[in-house]
Amino acid sequence: MREIRYDQLQESVFHEQLDNGLHIYIMPKPEFHQAYATFTAKYGSIDREFVIPGDTKPTVVPDGIAHFLEHKMFEEEHGDVFQEFAKYGASANAYTTFDMTTYLFSATDHLYENLQILVDFVQRTHLTDENVEKEKGIIGQEIQMYDDNPDWRSYFGVLQGLFKEHPVRIDIAGTIDSIAKITKETLNDCYKTFYHPSNMLLFVVGPFDPPKVVDLVAKNQSAKQFQPQAEIQRIYPQEPLEAANPRMEVHLSVSIPRCLFGFKEVNPGVTGRSLLERELSTAVGFDTLFSRSAELFNRLYNAGLIDKGFTWEYEVNKDYGFSVIGGNSKDPDRLMSIINAEVAKVRQEGVPRDAFELSRKKMIGKFLEGMDSPRYIARNFTSYRFKDADFFESVSVLEQLTHEQVNRRLAEHFEPKAQTVSLVLPNS
Amino acid sequence: MREIRYDQLQESVFHEQLDNGLHIYIMPKPEFHQAYATFTAKYGSIDREFVIPGDTKPTVVPDGIAHFLEHKMFEEEHGDVFQEFAKYGASANAYTTFDMTTYLFSATDHLYENLQILVDFVQRTHLTDENVEKEKGIIGQEIQMYDDNPDWRSYFGVLQGLFKEHPVRIDIAGTIDSIAKITKETLNDCYKTFYHPSNMLLFVVGPFDPPKVVDLVAKNQSAKQFQPQAEIQRIYPQEPLEAANPRMEVHLSVSIPRCLFGFKEVNPGVTGRSLLERELSTAVGFDTLFSRSAELFNRLYNAGLIDKGFTWEYEVNKDYGFSVIGGNSKDPDRLMSIINAEVAKVRQEGVPRDAFELSRKKMIGKFLEGMDSPRYIARNFTSYRFKDADFFESVSVLEQLTHEQVNRRLAEHFEPKAQTVSLVLPNS
Repeated sequence: MREIRYDQLQESVFHEQLDNGLHIYIMPKPEFHQAYATFTAKYGSIDREFVIPGDTKPTVVPDGIAHFLEHKMFEEEHGDVFQEFAKYGASANAYTTFDMTTYLFSATDHLYENLQILVDFVQRTHLTDENVEKEKGIIGQEIQMYDDNPDWRSYFGVLQGLFKEHPVRIDIAGTIDSIAKITKETLNDCYKTFYHPSNMLLFVVGPFDPPKVVDLVAKNQSAKQFQPQAEIQRIYPQEPLEAANPRMEVHLSVSIPRCLFGFKEVNPGVTGRSLLERELSTAVGFDTLFSRSAELFNRLYNAGLIDKGFTWEYEVNKDYGFSVIGGNSKDPDRLMSIINAEVAKVRQEGVPRDAFELSRKKMIGKFLEGMDSPRYIARNFTSYRFKDADFFESVSVLEQLTHEQVNRRLAEHFEPKAQTVSLVLPNS
Repeated sequence: MREIRYDQLQESVFHEQLDNGLHIYIMPKPEFHQAYATFTAKYGSIDREFVIPGDTKPTVVPDGIAHFLEHKMFEEEHGDVFQEFAKYGASANAYTTFDMTTYLFSATDHLYENLQILVDFVQRTHLTDENVEKEKGIIGQEIQMYDDNPDWRSYFGVLQGLFKEHPVRIDIAGTIDSIAKITKETLNDCYKTFYHPSNMLLFVVGPFDPPKVVDLVAKNQSAKQFQPQAEIQRIYPQEPLEAANPRMEVHLSVSIPRCLFGFKEVNPGVTGRSLLERELSTAVGFDTLFSRSAELFNRLYNAGLIDKGFTWEYEVNKDYGFSVIGGNSKDPDRLMSIINAEVAKVRQEGVPRDAFELSRKKMIGKFLEGMDSPRYIARNFTSYRFKDADFFESVSVLEQLTHEQVNRRLAEHFEPKAQTVSLVLPNS
């Protein structure tokens, strides 16, 4: 077991890799009441084409299968796993993103019993033709519910407007048609490939004792038979620089239009500390422009063109990257013309130095606030670890970030050819 | 300054009441990175009729005015207050509920400067005829956005189905028509009445030093002139036992129906520890029936009648109380017939003892988890304080809660005459 010490944060994380390849990270937080554990497969909705270790040809699977598998994992031969956790006072949950599937529990007691339940239930399946068919109805309903939601529709409108080829453009849950093609056999193939311990990461934070965690998990794993597995080869399509479609429109029964826009990252391919730098310099730049205290935000708000729900996000991975910015607007065209004028100006002149400085400090504060939240820590630590980056270096990256870096970053990201606008408009 | 010690939780809260009536509560949490402060007026959307201290006759104000006032508080003569907070690295926010209006900031640095900004901006207004008119457009847009949301519509459908007279049945933001009637003068009347220090509570949690907080706020307050104010007489209508309407239906462009149901509290009027007992015994009972590990939940889920989004909530105050339970369902009528059969059975036989015991322990765990979150602590402490209850007694109440109490509580709450079902159905 190796201790990774973060002097500035006065925190430590303990790391162990087991013989079967599983990575365990433990962040002791004796002052927390809550224990929070996540068991994550590096496997998400974008993993639709890959070579199963040992095979020679690629396998293509139906869209939405990672999320479908997540649903099925909670089903046991007798009852379901929520009841097991409930016996030890824990709440369990799971979620699937573009690039990971996470199972988690939070509890204030019986930490080790709950940890055992978590590891065990994720490492067994109970798939039958019948229960796979039944799940199609349940997930189909979930997909329809999201389809009803104008905010979700405008969000995926941005991704579809940006990406021509990359599967990040497809809803994480898939479509009614794609999930219809899912079978017990395909689910088992995905399960065996992506839930192998060498493709997984266990992260625990809270009043845990690191040696006790490692000991428990090591014993648990050595009692199970996993064949060694080579790395999974994942195949992602080549994505052009230009946005797939500069303007996406859909009409729904809304009273207020939704207006989101975004840019495709024209040059991802970064990992490690460079990825953290890219992400944080973009975030600081966006905060400078779009936060509640930004000059542009207030100009748009006072003109009645946006409301308090105006938000932004930015995500970057080795193979894709994008921003999504916006909210409700009674006049999307006027909104976009003001924003695009500002964006063009920022590409030339950058953002004001004092605004940059405030946003940089605010981001450091936000990170430190997050360190009080087990959920925030667990989610981010794992996500960055899978990108070979260390989330706990955020403060150090932010402290070294310069005004020039942020200006260069915004000029690079705000590429007009890589922009799309996604509108949800009222039925006429 | 008085120390309130919670031995079981190993926590202390410090309390001071200033000469002008303001209550200050400080919960030192030196191990938190984050400082979180809330400044709350006991004033929400239900306060539509009241006697202004000094007046003899009641005043009736337009619906949505508390929320409207909250919006206007952020506007300053020069710029807005978000920029002031941003200078000290803080994020600010505010929200209005049925019975309170809260202004807050979170920060990891400059705690006392930010505290000063918070207290000062809430204790001054900048209302003009022009900026009041402009706000009507902004809030009107917010109201329309919520109207687009099927979940929000089904939620308020329950409240309108339950309550015939009580203003809890009206959307917190009011309606386009009601906010049209709001004037600078009415806003000023409400502000003077409800933002008097004697009707407010300042709660801070985080790495604060209690004497330093009291000293700062006391000096700040003594420099301002507040005339002593008698208690505000609030007038709420008498509410009949029966639900206003047992079935509410609205058709929207949704693919999956929303089905929420609820019960009106036929006998509120409780405060203090009794209110906490009522709330927690209801919560434990609901968890036993409706949580992810409950037998009923799993029966409904496996029959495809509900999905993972099925939730419940319960709220009780001196003058009103209600539950809202449900989610998406492809067959609301079948869902309700199974639920109502179970509810009738529970009224007769109660819930299983072992399920009660698990839910009780789970609730204790949830409370302790919440103690890691400044946001959770601040919101709940203030809300219960306004009901003369002490949120930190929750664990002690839960530990003493009996199976019989929960069964009696459910039998009392599940009054068929006080039930409504609110459906959002697809356009035919």
